[in-house]
Amino acid sequence: MLCPRLWRSLCALGRRSRSFSTTTTTPSPDLSGIYPPIATPFTASEDVDYGKLEENLQKYAKVPFRGLVVQGSNGEYPFLSEEERVEVVRAVRRNLPSERLLMAGSGCESTRATVRLTERMASAGADCVLVVTPCFYKGKMDNAALVQHFTQVADQSPVPVVLYSVPANTGLELPLEAVLSLAQHPNIVGLKDSGGDITRIGLIAHKTSKLEFQLLAGSAGFLMAAYGVGAVGGVCALANVLGPQVCDLHSLCVSGRWDEALSLQQRLIEPNTAVTRGLGVPGLKAAMEWFGFHGGSCRSPLQPLTEAQTLQLRQHFSNNGWI
Amino acid sequence: MLCPRLWRSLCALGRRSRSFSTTTTTPSPDLSGIYPPIATPFTASEDVDYGKLEENLQKYAKVPFRGLVVQGSNGEYPFLSEEERVEVVRAVRRNLPSERLLMAGSGCESTRATVRLTERMASAGADCVLVVTPCFYKGKMDNAALVQHFTQVADQSPVPVVLYSVPANTGLELPLEAVLSLAQHPNIVGLKDSGGDITRIGLIAHKTSKLEFQLLAGSAGFLMAAYGVGAVGGVCALANVLGPQVCDLHSLCVSGRWDEALSLQQRLIEPNTAVTRGLGVPGLKAAMEWFGFHGGSCRSPLQPLTEAQTLQLRQHFSNNGWI
Amino acid sequence: MLCPRLWRSLCALGRRSRSFSTTTTTPSPDLSGIYPPIATPFTASEDVDYGKLEENLQKYAKVPFRGLVVQGSNGEYPFLSEEERVEVVRAVRRNLPSERLLMAGSGCESTRATVRLTERMASAGADCVLVVTPCFYKGKMDNAALVQHFTQVADQSPVPVVLYSVPANTGLELPLEAVLSLAQHPNIVGLKDSGGDITRIGLIAHKTSKLEFQLLAGSAGFLMAAYGVGAVGGVCALANVLGPQVCDLHSLCVSGRWDEALSLQQRLIEPNTAVTRGLGVPGLKAAMEWFGFHGGSCRSPLQPLTEAQTLQLRQHFSNNGWI
Amino acid sequence: MLCPRLWRSLCALGRRSRSFSTTTTTPSPDLSGIYPPIATPFTASEDVDYGKLEENLQKYAKVPFRGLVVQGSNGEYPFLSEEERVEVVRAVRRNLPSERLLMAGSGCESTRATVRLTERMASAGADCVLVVTPCFYKGKMDNAALVQHFTQVADQSPVPVVLYSVPANTGLELPLEAVLSLAQHPNIVGLKDSGGDITRIGLIAHKTSKLEFQLLAGSAGFLMAAYGVGAVGGVCALANVLGPQVCDLHSLCVSGRWDEALSLQQRLIEPNTAVTRGLGVPGLKAAMEWFGFHGGSCRSPLQPLTEAQTLQLRQHFSNNGWI
Repeated sequence: MLCPRLWRSLCALGRRSRSFSTTTTTPSPDLSGIYPPIATPFTASEDVDYGKLEENLQKYAKVPFRGLVVQGSNGEYPFLSEEERVEVVRAVRRNLPSERLLMAGSGCESTRATVRLTERMASAGADCVLVVTPCFYKGKMDNAALVQHFTQVADQSPVPVVLYSVPANTGLELPLEAVLSLAQHPNIVGLKDSGGDITRIGLIAHKTSKLEFQLLAGSAGFLMAAYGVGAVGGVCALANVLGPQVCDLHSLCVSGRWDEALSLQQRLIEPNTAVTRGLGVPGLKAAMEWFGFHGGSCRSPLQPLTEAQTLQLRQHFSNNGWI
Repeated sequence: MLCPRLWRSLCALGRRSRSFSTTTTTPSPDLSGIYPPIATPFTASEDVDYGKLEENLQKYAKVPFRGLVVQGSNGEYPFLSEEERVEVVRAVRRNLPSERLLMAGSGCESTRATVRLTERMASAGADCVLVVTPCFYKGKMDNAALVQHFTQVADQSPVPVVLYSVPANTGLELPLEAVLSLAQHPNIVGLKDSGGDITRIGLIAHKTSKLEFQLLAGSAGFLMAAYGVGAVGGVCALANVLGPQVCDLHSLCVSGRWDEALSLQQRLIEPNTAVTRGLGVPGLKAAMEWFGFHGGSCRSPLQPLTEAQTLQLRQHFSNNGWI
Repeated sequence: MLCPRLWRSLCALGRRSRSFSTTTTTPSPDLSGIYPPIATPFTASEDVDYGKLEENLQKYAKVPFRGLVVQGSNGEYPFLSEEERVEVVRAVRRNLPSERLLMAGSGCESTRATVRLTERMASAGADCVLVVTPCFYKGKMDNAALVQHFTQVADQSPVPVVLYSVPANTGLELPLEAVLSLAQHPNIVGLKDSGGDITRIGLIAHKTSKLEFQLLAGSAGFLMAAYGVGAVGGVCALANVLGPQVCDLHSLCVSGRWDEALSLQQRLIEPNTAVTRGLGVPGLKAAMEWFGFHGGSCRSPLQPLTEAQTLQLRQHFSNNGWI
Repeated sequence: MLCPRLWRSLCALGRRSRSFSTTTTTPSPDLSGIYPPIATPFTASEDVDYGKLEENLQKYAKVPFRGLVVQGSNGEYPFLSEEERVEVVRAVRRNLPSERLLMAGSGCESTRATVRLTERMASAGADCVLVVTPCFYKGKMDNAALVQHFTQVADQSPVPVVLYSVPANTGLELPLEAVLSLAQHPNIVGLKDSGGDITRIGLIAHKTSKLEFQLLAGSAGFLMAAYGVGAVGGVCALANVLGPQVCDLHSLCVSGRWDEALSLQQRLIEPNTAVTRGLGVPGLKAAMEWFGFHGGSCRSPLQPLTEAQTLQLRQHFSNNGWI
């Protein structure tokens, strides 16, 4: 019998081989479906709580997710060290059935750090990587710089790359022109768009319709609309809390039951806004507790909710019949 | 036989009576459908060219529009004097079959001027008015100020009021809270939302579902998505150019033929963006010429397109098979 | 003895002649000094209260202002009809000693309306006009459009033109390139810059140092700094309330007594912010009452201060020893 | 004779002791003067080039700087690993005379990482640390979160802390209220303000005048104005290129020779804008080469200047007589 460590190494090798062939002839992975961008639970002393993380993963295993996003914005990745980022991915991989996709956030400010972390994420078991736009030097992150960055990362990544545009955090939207250019790279398979500009999402779908390029809505707030204009799935903070419901919305949309979809979509907007734009990760983690998951507190400087905010959060769920 | 002037006065009186009852028991007008926010043609010396306007109206009469918006942003209303604004509405009324809705922009910066112009628009034949958010003192245009403004206008308006939020021009979005509060006013019947935030549109539809409050998409770029989440129509610059196609999109959406709708929607995004965000009113007017309408030049300081811009505009139409 | 009306006509004629020669050989008017952008008092029914206006003017006559700005942003000009705008200027002229400069805001959205109102303002007694950037079609108000607009206005204006950039209201800053180009026009004599970017103000001073182009700070908050980098005066809302103090600051700056200037400047920042960015025109008008002027309420939709806001406003004055 | 390593350890210890007493009775370090926020030279393969760094430091030793900022925005710190960040500070310390202040950027997104890096920077020889606002979760970085963050860092820092607000990069300005609250912390000694809002800088100077809290202008573009309203020094990218000139401007300002200061200030604005807002770090590094320093290329995704940009950069220096 193989020791777990060797086994994992072989799996990682397998993934790597698989993905290398991706850049030549294998088809892109099918990204279609719902992914919770999982939260990272911490202990009272702000260390990663792997025990609680695993308990969450066991519960998520019962929800028909397509996979998990590890270290999207809701995973507090900017607060994790490089070692922690890799170790959390490794822990998730150990607890995730192989048919579920592990999409790991590997974006850093520099191209070289992103390339290196991408490789480490692949070795740790990621099926693909989610690469956010660098943003500190936002004034210089024009089309040319971003195309160059993502191309270098995709050229060297052992696994497929998903682009990630999240202007509320980065202050920067991946320009349409860059998206259309990068969509032609054989190792870039999709875009998670959290900006929510539905006109833009529809146009990207239109302009990439002949490519194997898949669009993921970055929030449950505009999920149904995104399916309507051509998206294939969603990475939705709210799926950490109301996972089955978000998956239902996916099913209704892909099967064309739009009337039922609308009714469900409308009831999800307020709780979704509350755990994203409204109260952010602290709000998401508080709501997770109400639905049987470990949320807990965030790393500082993110602050816990005030009592008034907690009440407000609760109302956004109860107003829509979720509590 | 009645002289035309008297006849128009009687009609105006009729409208006024009708609308007064609106505020008590008559149902709101059904806003469902497509409206071009018509352009205002000018002569070489920048005067309103009523002859060309009428010719455009005759062509629009053959397109199955629900009605016309006179003096939305595309009508260059900030460049018209109060007299011109009223006279243009009067001219449109003369040329518009009575079953078509005439929605006239009557927004001004002050409440008193808006009230007065609203009354004049109703007398000139408007069936309802479209009232934009005041915006010069944007730092003070909070929820309370805007609710107060629109309430005063709606209280005194002889015809139903449609709210108008167009942040690209005003630098200000009518806050959700204000919309929900104003939606309860018996003489406020809808919102034209040009911001395009589909999450917001879906939420407004959800929160006003028990009221007679109708949502109009303010652009063809997100028209299908807006129908998907609960809108009933659209005020679309592009309908000045591709009117039948935008009306087709309406029909496909309301009859639930979403796959065909998507294919059409996608081909409309680029030309739509070109005549709105991209090249603005000068772009819209240039494209109108290509499709047999009188567009012509704008009032200064809006500048005519450069040759490069004209070429670019043309490509947005030809790329999508419209030219 | 001449009847007042004829006399004023002759004065207007004189001004016009003077100004025509301005465009050829006469030197630009010396703008150096402080100008309150005067508030417009209204009656309880929101009509212009000319009696109160005159009483304010009589008090201002005792303060060593260089002149008055009539219908800057603080004059609520977007709420006045064209007739009211001209009539207010006429009323001010009647009450203003001839050696004091009357700078009248004549900006409108269209070039043609601005040209016409400029001519009317000159006839009504304005010594020069303050022309704000058009802003509704902000996406199209590029360098070329704005240069064209101001050039046409200046070409046709009987009196010298002062450019006016106020991004907090317009959402648009007059681009540096446009300023430098327009500064060469013989009938454009200066810029009122309310944006407060001191680097920009310093650079404009530097690049126009060989022209007769004068810079006015658009707020008392950065008045001393603006003098430091080359401005010659200020149009300051706070001068409606603390006129002598703002004039003192001018004197200290122009005589190089920077240490005393700093001490005074610092005490003016908080009350200034309160009556501009903080509480806006309603705040300004409330403070005017405390200092013996007629402020009163604004036209709707500007709302009166709440009790909490009034208290806060008072503290900004009392904290700095002004009450 | 001590081995260098032990010697440095003792120095570090000394610094630590010194700084601990800072939090009790010793006066704050005098920050007054000019600091270049030094660039980090890289080899062709994008590794830190310590040899070139030392050569730059030897040249800077001849310029009368107050000290150096290591890992401000111009140091490309977001592209350096934690190890590199510390090692670069260590290298600078070895080459910096002890009377010159070494201010090290130790800001990270999380409080815990910032605390740890702050300690490491102090051990590596930093005299004080410059702590940027966390910004990824900008929607949650309100007054309370930021006060909490900086307080925790300052409580635990062995050396004095300088706050750092740089909205062009972070999309977030450290709120005035937070600055005034933090200014009272015994281990927070100042603020580097790169936003350039001179009204705000003047107000902070006014409201902290009774504290030992020192203001540093974050750019040479508004350096003179900042001195005018109460700043004591500047951290200026341009000082990497025109160090003696920026130090001259400091001397002229602190000795009250404002006329000469103005003339020099004005000639510095354009080259300063070019190497900051205009062309960013690549522009700064290109200009450094022209003045005898090692600039070289940046880490990707920052791109080298195009030929047109290089020409434009050169003109900003030559137009003002610097080349």
